[in-house]
Amino acid sequence: MAKEITPQGQDYSQWYNDLVLKAGLAEHSAVKGCMVIKPYGYAIWEKMKEILDKKFKETGHVNAAFPLFIPKNFLSKEAAHVDGFAKECAVVTHYRLKNDPNGGGIVVDPEAKLEEELIVRPTSETIIWSTYKNWINSYRDLPLLINQWANVVRWEMRTRLFLRTTEFFWQEGHTAHETAQEAQVETQKMLDIYASFMYDYMAVPVIKGVKSAGERFAGAVDTYTLEGLMQDGKALQMGTSHFLGQNFAKAFEVKFKNKKNNDEYVWATSWGVSTRLMGALIMSHSDDEGLVLPPRLAPLQVVIIPICTTEQQLYNIKSHLSEFIDFCNNENITYKIDSDLKSSAGWKFAEYEMKGVPIRLALGGRDMDNGTIEIVRRDTREKKTIPFVALNNYVKKLLIEIQENLLYRATLRRDDGTHDVASWQEFTDILENKGGFIRAFWDGTQETEDKVKELTKATIRCIPLDQEEEVGIDPLSGKPANIKVLYAKAY
Amino acid sequence: MAKEITPQGQDYSQWYNDLVLKAGLAEHSAVKGCMVIKPYGYAIWEKMKEILDKKFKETGHVNAAFPLFIPKNFLSKEAAHVDGFAKECAVVTHYRLKNDPNGGGIVVDPEAKLEEELIVRPTSETIIWSTYKNWINSYRDLPLLINQWANVVRWEMRTRLFLRTTEFFWQEGHTAHETAQEAQVETQKMLDIYASFMYDYMAVPVIKGVKSAGERFAGAVDTYTLEGLMQDGKALQMGTSHFLGQNFAKAFEVKFKNKKNNDEYVWATSWGVSTRLMGALIMSHSDDEGLVLPPRLAPLQVVIIPICTTEQQLYNIKSHLSEFIDFCNNENITYKIDSDLKSSAGWKFAEYEMKGVPIRLALGGRDMDNGTIEIVRRDTREKKTIPFVALNNYVKKLLIEIQENLLYRATLRRDDGTHDVASWQEFTDILENKGGFIRAFWDGTQETEDKVKELTKATIRCIPLDQEEEVGIDPLSGKPANIKVLYAKAY
Repeated sequence: MAKEITPQGQDYSQWYNDLVLKAGLAEHSAVKGCMVIKPYGYAIWEKMKEILDKKFKETGHVNAAFPLFIPKNFLSKEAAHVDGFAKECAVVTHYRLKNDPNGGGIVVDPEAKLEEELIVRPTSETIIWSTYKNWINSYRDLPLLINQWANVVRWEMRTRLFLRTTEFFWQEGHTAHETAQEAQVETQKMLDIYASFMYDYMAVPVIKGVKSAGERFAGAVDTYTLEGLMQDGKALQMGTSHFLGQNFAKAFEVKFKNKKNNDEYVWATSWGVSTRLMGALIMSHSDDEGLVLPPRLAPLQVVIIPICTTEQQLYNIKSHLSEFIDFCNNENITYKIDSDLKSSAGWKFAEYEMKGVPIRLALGGRDMDNGTIEIVRRDTREKKTIPFVALNNYVKKLLIEIQENLLYRATLRRDDGTHDVASWQEFTDILENKGGFIRAFWDGTQETEDKVKELTKATIRCIPLDQEEEVGIDPLSGKPANIKVLYAKAY
Repeated sequence: MAKEITPQGQDYSQWYNDLVLKAGLAEHSAVKGCMVIKPYGYAIWEKMKEILDKKFKETGHVNAAFPLFIPKNFLSKEAAHVDGFAKECAVVTHYRLKNDPNGGGIVVDPEAKLEEELIVRPTSETIIWSTYKNWINSYRDLPLLINQWANVVRWEMRTRLFLRTTEFFWQEGHTAHETAQEAQVETQKMLDIYASFMYDYMAVPVIKGVKSAGERFAGAVDTYTLEGLMQDGKALQMGTSHFLGQNFAKAFEVKFKNKKNNDEYVWATSWGVSTRLMGALIMSHSDDEGLVLPPRLAPLQVVIIPICTTEQQLYNIKSHLSEFIDFCNNENITYKIDSDLKSSAGWKFAEYEMKGVPIRLALGGRDMDNGTIEIVRRDTREKKTIPFVALNNYVKKLLIEIQENLLYRATLRRDDGTHDVASWQEFTDILENKGGFIRAFWDGTQETEDKVKELTKATIRCIPLDQEEEVGIDPLSGKPANIKVLYAKAY
């Protein structure tokens, strides 16, 4: 089975697609651009959701549900927003089908035309702020800290599983505050929550930064972003947190009485991560044998393959393992004994490598006689035979070690893949031959940003936070500059 | 605040609507027929989801996600299904908006018309079975036990919050099996899982039964149902589990190689419960003061109201409570101390009654001096003053007692509201004057079923399972009959 995926070195993009299919994560559906998330892929996404949801709730956020549909006119209310989102979207124009009177099957009933078309939400700022208008009267109603887990639709011409699909799944937080400062603190707080999730669970060392005006969310004052560097040297935007100022409050007339009893417009943030994270996870750690999962997100952490051919042998092996199984249950380590006697051990090894199970144990009659067990870690594929009595602690420590190693490896790769450049020649050389992040001074103009994109297809991924004060020269324009940015080609 | 809801006796329907709004559960949105589920309502739905999801997983089911959209032609593939679901649905016809060249804002781009219209899923049998076709080849791929938590859309002309909305939230299980018998066992198993959830968590004593042909799910061979009796004597269908036979397998050509290596069509089930359960919960237990929640589904089980006016007093009260708080944390009892000094205790009492918090404690300086605390249970509104030292155990036991009492009360009401009738005169008398379930013999004909509906608006809610063998007379047709059914007017 493992043989069936294209090697990374041959065609990274094909490797990715093969892996997503062969590991049973997702597939294309009968509806153009929409994916089916298969049970194994969905189990990983569920773990992500559970962890993020807990972090949101611990910081005072609550969940709610807003409508799937948005009246067309809502999209036009915020001037920048409409340009960003009113373009490629699914439009509901009718609410009934009927039997074709001419016998042509079922057809849209022309009499059931909506007075105003409905848009399937591409994002929910407009419908939510039209609702907040009724919920917010006084400073006592603030802050309002609400999140929703939802499906959204953006009509995409070129789709890739998890990375860019017409329908995708995400969470979108939408908060309302008394002051600009409080909203800015919220924007940063959510950025930090995302970053810690990406480091600690996904083992992806993201860069925190702010977007240039050209890459900002349509309707935001500031867009903060988390940028990951994938194995092929391309960047992936993994999450964003927007300070929306009073833009949506003004568009939907959402005012509150402040403590001095004066009317003020409310300050807003929104922030989201999506099933795109699945793509980031895959392209940060996996290899030619398949998926590699960090133990903290693996639905199955340890798989045990009995090496035997009869039910009696299987029974003996299971008995031998009973204490280890108790240990796993107590330590919340997820495990599975693959008892299928019809498939070969070799087939199973390849299968669980493809699925990225962090630890594989193999145990047969000879191991039991010798008091040993074979253990293979998925990240390095290193194989060891250890004393059976040492198994419990070994597994527990190894899960931690794999988690750390994945982050370490990804951090090395990110750092090796980040290049400071001073000249335009260097810029294009590195972009063409090495890829990765290019760190360079930027003169701050839209003109330079556009020109770089036009010449190289690289974009400003972000202006990293916490920069030292420095001055230098923009490599393209030759103008003086005092901020450094990260350029990259991106997904 | 509590004064603002219409009494049940005056107008039950208005009472329901008032309660949903005033308790902060849900409201109508700017999109006709679609609701916003507010944070408090969503917290209850999340608890329901969590418990059900656990039960599904414990019985071997896994989650996945299938597309929101369904190609129009899919709906026509199963003959009965198309009649049931192709009528009132949201139809996506275009995928782009543009600026009106005549300056009329944004308009649908006529050039972005879909070749084939997409339907927003009203239920997912068709898209899922078109997918299963590729997943199922051999008996080794079976059973396939998949669930999805999703939003669905059915265009409704007359909507009511939670009970009937254009968009609603649900889970839909879709399973595939080798044999008819195995699929039938699955259908029953899921019915039992729903029933135990409704009894043990919702405290709603549902009746398990099978639907008559006239009330069957469009495309099912048999539809099993759980029917609850609401406080106003109307029935509510709370969940269904369908044995689909080979109907969808045949419509989508889903065959598998059986153990003898012959091709066979797969056997199917589907089953679902929705946000309608919120309506059932409300209309089973609540009263004129607001919501009444069973402790096992209450997001907040105990609210503590400090009776004081200064920060110092508040501090003393909190110190006094510290051991009780530890107790709650250890016992997973959810609690809140309402420390707001600006609102009066009376206002708070009404507020938490409206929200259905099962236990309310009030504690002031005098109570502390006396070594007592005031405790009020929401179900009976009984108030007691108990020794403070007895508090921990009292609260723990009372939560169990309230849960049991709600089920007991609802069971009494259901039994009192179930009437055996022998004559048509009795039938119409009881339906008109008492409502509730009418248990009567049915001659088994569609004709009688239709006639009863036409004359009284009552429908056959179900043929209850586990009937004793009996013969009698159908009260309307006067024909001999050997099954008893439950009739009722229904939501």
